[in-house]
Amino acid sequence: MARATGPRGPYSYCDSKEDLLGRMRKIEGQARGVTRMIEEDRYCVDIVQQLTALASAAEEVSLRILEAHIKGCVSDAIREHRGEEAVNELMATIRKAIRR
Amino acid sequence: MARATGPRGPYSYCDSKEDLLGRMRKIEGQARGVTRMIEEDRYCVDIVQQLTALASAAEEVSLRILEAHIKGCVSDAIREHRGEEAVNELMATIRKAIRR
Amino acid sequence: MARATGPRGPYSYCDSKEDLLGRMRKIEGQARGVTRMIEEDRYCVDIVQQLTALASAAEEVSLRILEAHIKGCVSDAIREHRGEEAVNELMATIRKAIRR
Amino acid sequence: MARATGPRGPYSYCDSKEDLLGRMRKIEGQARGVTRMIEEDRYCVDIVQQLTALASAAEEVSLRILEAHIKGCVSDAIREHRGEEAVNELMATIRKAIRR
Repeated sequence: MARATGPRGPYSYCDSKEDLLGRMRKIEGQARGVTRMIEEDRYCVDIVQQLTALASAAEEVSLRILEAHIKGCVSDAIREHRGEEAVNELMATIRKAIRR
Repeated sequence: MARATGPRGPYSYCDSKEDLLGRMRKIEGQARGVTRMIEEDRYCVDIVQQLTALASAAEEVSLRILEAHIKGCVSDAIREHRGEEAVNELMATIRKAIRR
Repeated sequence: MARATGPRGPYSYCDSKEDLLGRMRKIEGQARGVTRMIEEDRYCVDIVQQLTALASAAEEVSLRILEAHIKGCVSDAIREHRGEEAVNELMATIRKAIRR
Repeated sequence: MARATGPRGPYSYCDSKEDLLGRMRKIEGQARGVTRMIEEDRYCVDIVQQLTALASAAEEVSLRILEAHIKGCVSDAIREHRGEEAVNELMATIRKAIRR
């Protein structure tokens, strides 16, 4: 179910799909954990630390998908002489990830 | 259920508890959404964008809790002449949030 | 030469002025070093690493000034019942530093 | 004067060397400006804002060099079947830039 503008899948992160899904399930658990901490009136600093860990874990998944993306989709595009567009899209994505 | 080292609750973010819980439920939904995108082999760049939005939303919750923390717990501590420790803890928290 | 909207100085970072000035001079040197690397056509990855170190050093100075600011200006404001405005200004500053 | 481990130059950022050097000279000026603000005991928040602008400008230069690097060095490496190592080095660089 790739979106219209992306290249046709399957994409290269599929090799590490189980690792990524495991990380996402942990992040889902972290999000529920923070919700519960707020419901239970837990100490502010402890909640912020959990949120930092959650954001950091989300970035780690991003970095792993980006790596697979560059080794897969972007490398394919470069070899097939349509690298310009792929790299522009990649840079816009990295820029947003850095700037948040 | 405050941890031993924190000041006694309830904490000052409680005034905006509903806003924070609404944001956390949205983040939980974003996390489940990303899991599903990976399961469905969606396009890498689309997934990374969702993860960036998720991390950014988590940081927004952090900033709001930090603000309530400074206006509440830290301000109380400063007025009661135990500001030094409270500010050291605050700075360690901000440092980790910035450095990730 | 404090700006009109800030509280009257001297400010609390003055205690660590020598440390901060030493760090800033190192940052000035890092900036000149990167300029030179570009002039000399040095390897891209090496230049980016130097820029990351430079940005990281600038953030460290920010964190140290913020800490002195909270322990000094903001604490004074809280004790003198004008904490609201000081904390709002502080949060806007932290928000920009985190979001960049 | 490329370092031993990098591919032989000139590198692809050379096309935009004047733009990059202009940005670096501005960053050098920003660094000197912050040094002066500290010497003159300027208001903490104003200094932190300038440091945030400086770090942000350094990141912008990084992003531009990274873009040229991917379009040049990394693309060449991929076309010449030595993409694996180039992408690993790239990812380590992006990771450090994001994590700081």
